Amino acid sequence: MSVIDEMLSVNKKFCANPPVDYSGEDHHESKLPKKHLAIVTCMDTRLVNFIEPALGLSRGDVKIIKTAGNCLTGMFDATVRSLLVCIYELGVKEIAIIGHHECGMSKTTTESLTKAMLANGVSPDAIKMVKKEMTEWADGFQHPEDNVKSVVAQLRENPLIPKDVKIHGLMFHPRSGELELLDKG
Amino acid sequence: MSVIDEMLSVNKKFCANPPVDYSGEDHHESKLPKKHLAIVTCMDTRLVNFIEPALGLSRGDVKIIKTAGNCLTGMFDATVRSLLVCIYELGVKEIAIIGHHECGMSKTTTESLTKAMLANGVSPDAIKMVKKEMTEWADGFQHPEDNVKSVVAQLRENPLIPKDVKIHGLMFHPRSGELELLDKG
Repeated sequence: MSVIDEMLSVNKKFCANPPVDYSGEDHHESKLPKKHLAIVTCMDTRLVNFIEPALGLSRGDVKIIKTAGNCLTGMFDATVRSLLVCIYELGVKEIAIIGHHECGMSKTTTESLTKAMLANGVSPDAIKMVKKEMTEWADGFQHPEDNVKSVVAQLRENPLIPKDVKIHGLMFHPRSGELELLDKG
Repeated sequence: MSVIDEMLSVNKKFCANPPVDYSGEDHHESKLPKKHLAIVTCMDTRLVNFIEPALGLSRGDVKIIKTAGNCLTGMFDATVRSLLVCIYELGVKEIAIIGHHECGMSKTTTESLTKAMLANGVSPDAIKMVKKEMTEWADGFQHPEDNVKSVVAQLRENPLIPKDVKIHGLMFHPRSGELELLDKG
């Protein structure tokens, strides 16, 4: 069975006998995160279904934004845009940037990505179009902690984010589940 | 207690008595998603701790990327970059774009965001710097299903993504938990 068919099949069983009935929820109210917190963290597979219980987070508590290495790619990138929606439309008052140990982004380089792309038939000209941005992003990410500190600093300086929004920096361990505070906003 | 202190306190208890011991995992192997699948979905709080059980996804199965409205903001935006890392470094062979019903992005507009930013003291000049991009992004998002179809089409045409990577479009219901297939790659 394909991965998608498997998900659809599991989902059919889940919906036939849901563990909790959310059907009566107000769909405007239920969008607002109860903890007034947005978390920016990594797409790492070891965080799936693990960071939430390790931090005591339930459905409805927080917004979660996830990208490779929880890094920013500009003053108005997808993460910043998501945070603006959180702040201005959903009542978010605090932002937690949660990096993690053993983050793959510290191994990813322009060289490794370019080599793999060329080996998979990507046109050299398409790569040239993004080379400069790729270098800044992939080669600029050295240590997960430094990246968290840099993202926190960039968000605190972003003029689109109000000064009273607290921005915190933290690190998570993908195997022990330990959360460590780097910088409290 | 502040939200951050509360998370740290819950985490201390979690780590003192972890439900599963992952400490012996190989940290290179454990990064690779077992289902060779990357999911791009929304930051919505109702998906937290809900979409994973509803789709039968456990820690280690998939990579999850989350942004407001699971939309793309360019040919090499944070989501595309994350997907490139998934494909070229982590063995991902399939991508599932999972939008959801009742998505707040369909209500977000340049007008609503600008009004809220100005009311919170953001400088009109900072807003002017991103006005064009904001309009394309916020006002361009009308219906969650249409956005999924558009993201699927954009990724299939992205020259940085190999043609043999399957790209699927799906919709999720944040209250019933139902997953619906829109377009199988």
